[in-house]
Amino acid sequence: MGERRGHLVIIGGAEDREDDKAVLSTVAELAGGKDGRIVVLTTASRQADEEPEVAREFAELYERAFTGCGVGEVRTLHIHDRRGANEPEHATAVRAATGVFMTGGDQSRLVSILGGSAVHRAMRAGFARGGACIAGTSAGASAMSRHMPLGGPSEPVATKGMLPVAPGLGFLRNVVLDQHFSQRGRLARLLSVCAQNPFLLGVGIDEDTGLVVQPGVRLEVVGSGGVTVLDGRDMVYTNFNEVGRGEALAITDVRLHLLPTGFRFDVKTGVEDDARPKRSDDLNELMCTLMAGD
Amino acid sequence: MGERRGHLVIIGGAEDREDDKAVLSTVAELAGGKDGRIVVLTTASRQADEEPEVAREFAELYERAFTGCGVGEVRTLHIHDRRGANEPEHATAVRAATGVFMTGGDQSRLVSILGGSAVHRAMRAGFARGGACIAGTSAGASAMSRHMPLGGPSEPVATKGMLPVAPGLGFLRNVVLDQHFSQRGRLARLLSVCAQNPFLLGVGIDEDTGLVVQPGVRLEVVGSGGVTVLDGRDMVYTNFNEVGRGEALAITDVRLHLLPTGFRFDVKTGVEDDARPKRSDDLNELMCTLMAGD
Repeated sequence: MGERRGHLVIIGGAEDREDDKAVLSTVAELAGGKDGRIVVLTTASRQADEEPEVAREFAELYERAFTGCGVGEVRTLHIHDRRGANEPEHATAVRAATGVFMTGGDQSRLVSILGGSAVHRAMRAGFARGGACIAGTSAGASAMSRHMPLGGPSEPVATKGMLPVAPGLGFLRNVVLDQHFSQRGRLARLLSVCAQNPFLLGVGIDEDTGLVVQPGVRLEVVGSGGVTVLDGRDMVYTNFNEVGRGEALAITDVRLHLLPTGFRFDVKTGVEDDARPKRSDDLNELMCTLMAGD
Repeated sequence: MGERRGHLVIIGGAEDREDDKAVLSTVAELAGGKDGRIVVLTTASRQADEEPEVAREFAELYERAFTGCGVGEVRTLHIHDRRGANEPEHATAVRAATGVFMTGGDQSRLVSILGGSAVHRAMRAGFARGGACIAGTSAGASAMSRHMPLGGPSEPVATKGMLPVAPGLGFLRNVVLDQHFSQRGRLARLLSVCAQNPFLLGVGIDEDTGLVVQPGVRLEVVGSGGVTVLDGRDMVYTNFNEVGRGEALAITDVRLHLLPTGFRFDVKTGVEDDARPKRSDDLNELMCTLMAGD
């Protein structure tokens, strides 16, 4: 049958769209290049819903970018209500796509409009059975895992409840994905999630950076920044249960991992770098946890 | 003889000097309050050296702040060369002080002008034998440990060698102290130090926040932010030895600890919080490593 699970490209926002397009060209390639059909979804953007001019700009921006990367067919769907998300013509287009790209905006819109709809089911089927590439930037990235951060302040002090977590679109199982990570100083808010849900890995993706995951198989970082992973499973101490909402959190023994652009892990061979493949049980466990599909 | 080791107050810059003065009032109290004698050193500031107006403003700012916190005697010494640092009258004033406060500026100036001088020896003697409080903000904080970060970019990507480490004034043994931590997004540069020197704990102090340490005895966080500790001793993987200077670093399994304002650890009783004292071998080991005097 040739069934194969596709790739996710989880982008930290502000990806280059005009020059080297390092991240978008990875999406283009994983979506099949000149034989590819990419559908761009602007659902996350309220502006694209309310202002036709913005919707047109969004469409032109990504259609030009992906066409510039050599993708054969690029089409934008402006789906901004449940009716649109259940429109058979939309679902058919998404199911036939080799790549789906979700723009930035508000991840709550994305989930409340697409969640469980025909378009969402088409994305999941294309990904799980057709090898389609599912990509998203900023809000479109946060929405990709089972558990999704809602908006919250990027403040320097980690406080209880500063980043609420809600159900997402469910392509990855064990992670909470945050974006604009280093640029907006989001360590504190991602740590607050670790303190609350130590079973979830906090994954902070820098701007112009993509975390590429083929669940259970391989993982790679592309673009100009890095990916920071926070793993609270071995946390020794926290005051989480002794402070009130909004109060400052103490946390010790969160494991932190920094994966720069070019980092590659393959489940068969371990970390690939310039010297030689490396693996260790700890690293393997971490990577397999990160890559677990939903 | 009543010998006792004093306290260090290591401040992440931009401490409040006008309103609640939470951090400076801690310095004032540890320096003896109304019976205290604080000496302010402007050595780190090139501007205070070159522009008499700036030197006067610095002096007035901190004299007013500490006097406002009830300190009996506050005096500013403008020491900007080796001759001044070896001036017997200066050394005598510092040795008689119950508190020494180092302003911000450039930590290299601080070390190259004070290092090994009569004033530096007076600070160490006052601290180690007289119970004096040694405080510093921003550059004045970074200079306080045995190993000191030089200036470096606060960029989002951790690269090899981005934060060089040089000898400091030597009040703490096991830490590299960075300041303006969350506000300037300095996780990446502090991680680069962990990758290079996994035996040193990276300590990032937020603005308007003080890490109070009585070496070997107790530790506390005061002010409005927090302290982030990075411990690379259990690091599992890094590409440090395979990439060139300026290239992006991969690091896994750095332990991260977040200590918020109000966090208190006493070597006898463990972590003090609102519920009850807590201790664990891991936490105790970490805290004792953090607090080791030089």
